Amino acid sequence: MPYALDETHDPNRASWIESAQGHSEFPIQNLPLGIFSHGACGPRPGVAIGDSIFDIAAALEADLFTGEARRAAEAAGAGAGALNHLLALDAAPRRALRRRVSSLLAADGPARAQIESMRSRLIHDAAACTLHLPVAIGAYTDFFAGIEHAANGGRRRGQNPPLAPNYKYVPVAYHSRASSIRPAPAQIRRPHGQRLLGDSQVPQFGSCTKLDFELELGIWIGPGNALGEPIPIGCAGAHVAGLGLLNDWSARDIQRWESAPLGPFLSKNFGTTISPWIVTLDALTPFRIAQPPRPAGDPAPLGYLWDDDDQRSGAFDIDLEVLISTEAMRAKGLAAQRLALSNTRHLYWTLAQMVAHHTCGGCNLAAGDLFGSGTISASEPSGYGSMAELSYDGTKPVELASGETRAFLEDGDEIVFRAHARRAGYVSIGFGECRGAVVA
Amino acid sequence: MPYALDETHDPNRASWIESAQGHSEFPIQNLPLGIFSHGACGPRPGVAIGDSIFDIAAALEADLFTGEARRAAEAAGAGAGALNHLLALDAAPRRALRRRVSSLLAADGPARAQIESMRSRLIHDAAACTLHLPVAIGAYTDFFAGIEHAANGGRRRGQNPPLAPNYKYVPVAYHSRASSIRPAPAQIRRPHGQRLLGDSQVPQFGSCTKLDFELELGIWIGPGNALGEPIPIGCAGAHVAGLGLLNDWSARDIQRWESAPLGPFLSKNFGTTISPWIVTLDALTPFRIAQPPRPAGDPAPLGYLWDDDDQRSGAFDIDLEVLISTEAMRAKGLAAQRLALSNTRHLYWTLAQMVAHHTCGGCNLAAGDLFGSGTISASEPSGYGSMAELSYDGTKPVELASGETRAFLEDGDEIVFRAHARRAGYVSIGFGECRGAVVA
Repeated sequence: MPYALDETHDPNRASWIESAQGHSEFPIQNLPLGIFSHGACGPRPGVAIGDSIFDIAAALEADLFTGEARRAAEAAGAGAGALNHLLALDAAPRRALRRRVSSLLAADGPARAQIESMRSRLIHDAAACTLHLPVAIGAYTDFFAGIEHAANGGRRRGQNPPLAPNYKYVPVAYHSRASSIRPAPAQIRRPHGQRLLGDSQVPQFGSCTKLDFELELGIWIGPGNALGEPIPIGCAGAHVAGLGLLNDWSARDIQRWESAPLGPFLSKNFGTTISPWIVTLDALTPFRIAQPPRPAGDPAPLGYLWDDDDQRSGAFDIDLEVLISTEAMRAKGLAAQRLALSNTRHLYWTLAQMVAHHTCGGCNLAAGDLFGSGTISASEPSGYGSMAELSYDGTKPVELASGETRAFLEDGDEIVFRAHARRAGYVSIGFGECRGAVVA
Repeated sequence: MPYALDETHDPNRASWIESAQGHSEFPIQNLPLGIFSHGACGPRPGVAIGDSIFDIAAALEADLFTGEARRAAEAAGAGAGALNHLLALDAAPRRALRRRVSSLLAADGPARAQIESMRSRLIHDAAACTLHLPVAIGAYTDFFAGIEHAANGGRRRGQNPPLAPNYKYVPVAYHSRASSIRPAPAQIRRPHGQRLLGDSQVPQFGSCTKLDFELELGIWIGPGNALGEPIPIGCAGAHVAGLGLLNDWSARDIQRWESAPLGPFLSKNFGTTISPWIVTLDALTPFRIAQPPRPAGDPAPLGYLWDDDDQRSGAFDIDLEVLISTEAMRAKGLAAQRLALSNTRHLYWTLAQMVAHHTCGGCNLAAGDLFGSGTISASEPSGYGSMAELSYDGTKPVELASGETRAFLEDGDEIVFRAHARRAGYVSIGFGECRGAVVA
């Protein structure tokens, strides 16, 4: 069993950081990794704890790490404001860092008195910090592993059956654009591009008329592989370091016109938003589940995508939520309204299958590469992960509590993703927000 | 007229480097930029001249640059073995560096005696050097601007008309994989992947049975743009720094199976080969031509893709050649055999149109990004730029002088691309080879 629990998952462990108790998304059982800056200090590695950030660089200067944990803390600081060197390490030093930080922040930790006396150096108020992209993203690959979303798209295009013949064999993916990924909270400018208006067969250039969000998991790659050396499925899971929430903003009108025959391009590359904290797979160990069984009649995965351990524990039970806040809602003092509630169980492929597939022809991954999972829609309309699905391509606009309707996104709309992993007997953890606002 | 000739293009200028005379691809009128290493010296910037390499770092140490040229030479060395900082500069300092290097290497240059006395420091035998990727490639975008290739592909897929409705409006492109790009000469491992064999509807995983090359221009991006700030067509040409030759190796069987609905992925990302010298647009000024007129009935480009200057001088007249050398040919002492002769005139879109389109929705480019042009096939079969076209998807294998035939590439085959720009009254320049060998 590659996914062992340890004292960092102990539900009885509490932190002396007060805000990490109760319903915090960042209790001591989470400890996600990120890059923050604070006052005059440039970007540096940190760990979210309650409403605060634990400063790894300051703790390293204070000589609080030894051995493997020190090696990991040094790697975290080696990237000039990017965690690539840390993610490139094997799991052992990354786990040692997690265990040491957990111990330092534990209410009953052996060093509590010493650490608490250094609080002003080590602990920063998150609200006073700026969060950055956690890594320098080398490459961004977007998968299509949400089978409900894929089927909904096929139905919209009039395909029968809705899924392409390859879908249940191939973890379909395409390369997308890394340079335009920004950490949440982010503003997204409505893009211009070519699209067909009405029944015209001649495109016009102008502002996107069908701007959409896509609810995805962001998958941070840890150690990479050399060109020409595929990663076997049996060890592919160890090449993922952590997860985030990713909004793959999409211009549906541009996408429809441009995609023949090579796939989406400008309809996806004008901006992508990622939640800034890397929730490590170590933190998610309690929330691993067996890959849900394939429906009767579906083919078994080909051998290079099959691993017994991966089938037993390669999936996750994480609730995913989409909320919208319009200008009118904010003017009326209305809270953001839920558009969808989904779950990572709706992924047809595991992370390990994605890694094994991506590398099976020899393509090389590197630490800090990012995968998108593909839009994770539930089977019910209340869990659809994009406006195109929620509004049936605009034909059935969604009614909001403000009295407004939405076919697609309007300027001023804010979209917020949240994620929570829960399991009886364990402390729930969250991902923090992935928030983005549409501007003209 | 943005493309002015200067003394660096003077056909009467000769170099005191003997091998730069006659039929060299790298006469003093060329001066392409690259990164080389030599003996114990790590990767450093250089300029190809005849069979030699002029060492920019050594010339900088020897205090041979002043003013704008010095600024460019310093930028060339600032990237730790990558020219990104140089490419990020405006055209003026890059051109100043070119003019200064041309003067230093000119047979009648004012500093010839001084420079020649430092020859052992400044000039290296290219055969004793290793060439590297010239830049750290941030992102690689592959266009589809070779209209003959696009039409041939449509015909193979049974489309009538062969081009998709968007083709003559949209400079179609997709994001591809930067991490697996290697400088020529390179070995390409035949990839494994999922593909349908025979008439089967069920894929099998195994070795690619339809390995192909694609003859493309590599387009090196110079200064980039900020996210959300499109580059207008009128200044888009200035964002390209230079050209190379690019082999977009393709696995046709994998491509056919995987591409629905998001485009090619593993069929393209197992390896891409680029010629290591950046032939600057300054060197190519004499070989600029008007964009060939569109056939009657084709729509005019939309406004954001139209610029009078670009139409008058945004295209190039560069001959492109593909040669093959098989194991049997080498065993028999046969020279490499020409498979195709094409020309950049067959590009339907100019470089400026590609840049303007890529950024029109706000996507940000950066110095050192790479575009592929798309496969540049001529209209005649003697100019087809891939085996899929030459052999009509394998149905009419190509006969070789060795008595062999080729439907697609076999292990041991070497594919060589060459490029030459020629114009009466000017000295011809070449790109150097883009050579790759297929291994099992």
